[in-house]
Amino acid sequence: MRYDVVVVGGGPAGLVAALTTKKFYKDKKVLVIKKTEKELVPCGIPYVFHTLDGVENDFMGVEERFQKAGIDLLIDEVVGGDTDQKKIVTKTGKEIIYEKLILATGSIPAVPRIAGIDLSNVFTISKDAKYLSSVLEKTRTCRNIAIIGGGFIGIEVADELKRAGKNVTVVEIMDCLLPVSFDPDFGELARKEIEAENLKVYTSRKVVEIYGSKSVEGVKLDNGENIPADAVILATGYKPNTELARQLGLKITEYGFIETDEYMRTSKPDVFAAGDCVQHKDFLTGKPSRLMLASAAVFDARIVASNLYGLKVIRTNKGSLNAYSTVIGHKAFGSVGITERTAKEEGFEIVVGKAEGIDRHPGKFDDTSKLIVKLIFSQDSRILLGAQLYGGKSVGEIVNILSLGIQKGITANDLFTMQIGTHPLLTSAPTSYPLVIAAEQVLH
Amino acid sequence: MRYDVVVVGGGPAGLVAALTTKKFYKDKKVLVIKKTEKELVPCGIPYVFHTLDGVENDFMGVEERFQKAGIDLLIDEVVGGDTDQKKIVTKTGKEIIYEKLILATGSIPAVPRIAGIDLSNVFTISKDAKYLSSVLEKTRTCRNIAIIGGGFIGIEVADELKRAGKNVTVVEIMDCLLPVSFDPDFGELARKEIEAENLKVYTSRKVVEIYGSKSVEGVKLDNGENIPADAVILATGYKPNTELARQLGLKITEYGFIETDEYMRTSKPDVFAAGDCVQHKDFLTGKPSRLMLASAAVFDARIVASNLYGLKVIRTNKGSLNAYSTVIGHKAFGSVGITERTAKEEGFEIVVGKAEGIDRHPGKFDDTSKLIVKLIFSQDSRILLGAQLYGGKSVGEIVNILSLGIQKGITANDLFTMQIGTHPLLTSAPTSYPLVIAAEQVLH
Repeated sequence: MRYDVVVVGGGPAGLVAALTTKKFYKDKKVLVIKKTEKELVPCGIPYVFHTLDGVENDFMGVEERFQKAGIDLLIDEVVGGDTDQKKIVTKTGKEIIYEKLILATGSIPAVPRIAGIDLSNVFTISKDAKYLSSVLEKTRTCRNIAIIGGGFIGIEVADELKRAGKNVTVVEIMDCLLPVSFDPDFGELARKEIEAENLKVYTSRKVVEIYGSKSVEGVKLDNGENIPADAVILATGYKPNTELARQLGLKITEYGFIETDEYMRTSKPDVFAAGDCVQHKDFLTGKPSRLMLASAAVFDARIVASNLYGLKVIRTNKGSLNAYSTVIGHKAFGSVGITERTAKEEGFEIVVGKAEGIDRHPGKFDDTSKLIVKLIFSQDSRILLGAQLYGGKSVGEIVNILSLGIQKGITANDLFTMQIGTHPLLTSAPTSYPLVIAAEQVLH
Repeated sequence: MRYDVVVVGGGPAGLVAALTTKKFYKDKKVLVIKKTEKELVPCGIPYVFHTLDGVENDFMGVEERFQKAGIDLLIDEVVGGDTDQKKIVTKTGKEIIYEKLILATGSIPAVPRIAGIDLSNVFTISKDAKYLSSVLEKTRTCRNIAIIGGGFIGIEVADELKRAGKNVTVVEIMDCLLPVSFDPDFGELARKEIEAENLKVYTSRKVVEIYGSKSVEGVKLDNGENIPADAVILATGYKPNTELARQLGLKITEYGFIETDEYMRTSKPDVFAAGDCVQHKDFLTGKPSRLMLASAAVFDARIVASNLYGLKVIRTNKGSLNAYSTVIGHKAFGSVGITERTAKEEGFEIVVGKAEGIDRHPGKFDDTSKLIVKLIFSQDSRILLGAQLYGGKSVGEIVNILSLGIQKGITANDLFTMQIGTHPLLTSAPTSYPLVIAAEQVLH
């Protein structure tokens, strides 16, 4: 077989790399190779436990989109190849010659070394539909579930399992929930939301052992406390899936990710990479970043597709910006850019503006929520470096106002003089729009 | 009496001008003079008819905020003064000496010349709480209500009166609903929403007469059709309230607004103006604009307060951007910048990107809504000039992503390479985020 462009991986990065390639280069023959028939929407995974009620409601449905776009699809696994000969080889023995190769091999759960990790009913949040389906099946009969890790995935899964009627305990090693993207003040808000759902949360606590005879019976904390559990879910992060990249001899960074340049080119000619398997660089410091997000992955994929045949200097990845949002209990949380904690660790001189308001006006509408905004600016220039948000569902897009703002280098003055649209049923009042009020606190 | 800063008007512009002044100049004595005890949240007014169930749930509550900020308040009407002597005079005979004067006198309903306009039960949507309360009282017993004007206010009031159980007919003179901020394709979406609520809508139709013996009995259209009605509501726009400005001898533009420069200074020394009473200039063309929005008014007010004592060149109003959002039936509509129609009239060479998606992912969540985005770019540079949106409630903040974008001069490429935050319960999927997909259509 011979293809112009071969994409390995069927997650968000693979999907967008293929679709965008075909959009930009209509005449190129594009093939996507993915391991499984159906991939899950990765961010939807926590919701299969209750709200979506099963993995079948979380499939990406890429097949039809590929067919419509004229992209070929092969269900198989690429096990090796030769980048000099521009050839890859699949598990079923197929040899495919490519002109451009895009690796979008994603990530797999990182399993911590804890005693008892191999007991039955210890699960990861894998992105494999079959595995996840079996987790769903096995946890249905469980009463007490312990979740190790209080980041996004841990909390979202915890929230869902609680809604499904389980007793849920979350154990986080750091001093607050969501410690990577939020400061402790917002971590505390997250704790309040999740405790209001009657979940039990431990912070600054480490699981030292998962105990049980054959199947899990509980977890032991570093303070000696035992938490009984019929199942343990590991929400302890992911690691890049770079097996194929290593096979092909691509350069791997010291953190275990595929190394690329700003055009997402790997160390081998005509081999590109996108998504969780790639070593990202932090948007603000340029330092290596462990960022793994579907939204970051598709950004990579768009950069790859833009630069496959000829470099576009206006479409590069000069740094990945960690824009997130999530829902905990009945509140949405959003974060983008640097936290106060990280700013201090990195040595940024910062000033912080904070505002509290509501997300409707007047506050008499049923779905009115409190809205809290923290904006972090550089002290010298008042350039926006980061933001944290707590509120109703509109937080999901307010994060994107600020994300665009950080990308465009806006200042507190830009936010203070920002012209906005407002509506009683949709937003805060124009007189007290929290982004403006928070910026006002730190004007020069 | 003597004050450093006197603000005339208690609407959003007056409120924000006073609060921001006091924030920037803590030692200045600030007085706000307003005509009535309690002002309404202007954008909330349509909702007093049903959702808020009465004017008392739509009060701004400025008194406490002024007290807390140390701002004095006088309920009175300024009827004249002398800008050479820096003095104003109130209806009750008070003379007040000012150092800086800020006029935020707002706007009043524009009443069209139609036969029968003086019949009883012909109402405007005034911002006066007492008047509005009486409209509420009088329409309670009405069965059939005709609304003249299919802009925001007309449609929002129509929607509310329908929910209150009335038969409602809307008559719009232009060829689509919301004709100022939306193109006919979005006007058509608005019509579908409102017709789904069982309201009757006429477009390209003019009311030539309001008929009745003493009280309204109906309206006659320009095609001869009669629409029976017990009440008529005029939603035919507002005109600037410039009576005091004229008294003080300020320069008034040919369109009847107070003339100001980019620092919001009027033609008289130390007299500033903000809000609906001011002649705005269009953000994209610099031409005079009739823009009257609370969100534009508070922007003016922030510029005024910034420049009262010494000009800040980074805080000017170089042009007002019309960012709007509204809710019709069960959908939100948003618009910012230029429409296709206006672009053509003005002679802009444009290209248009359009994308349809959903505002959650996967699309299995209860509150998932279709999301339609139209982006209008300049043909030469692909700079973003305008946007129109249809979708769920997140549209209210998506408008602000684009509003910030227009203010920062972003291009289609910036949107295509925008790093975003996404979440299943809050936003579209990262793989098909409509702003990115719409921008992708028009990349160079």
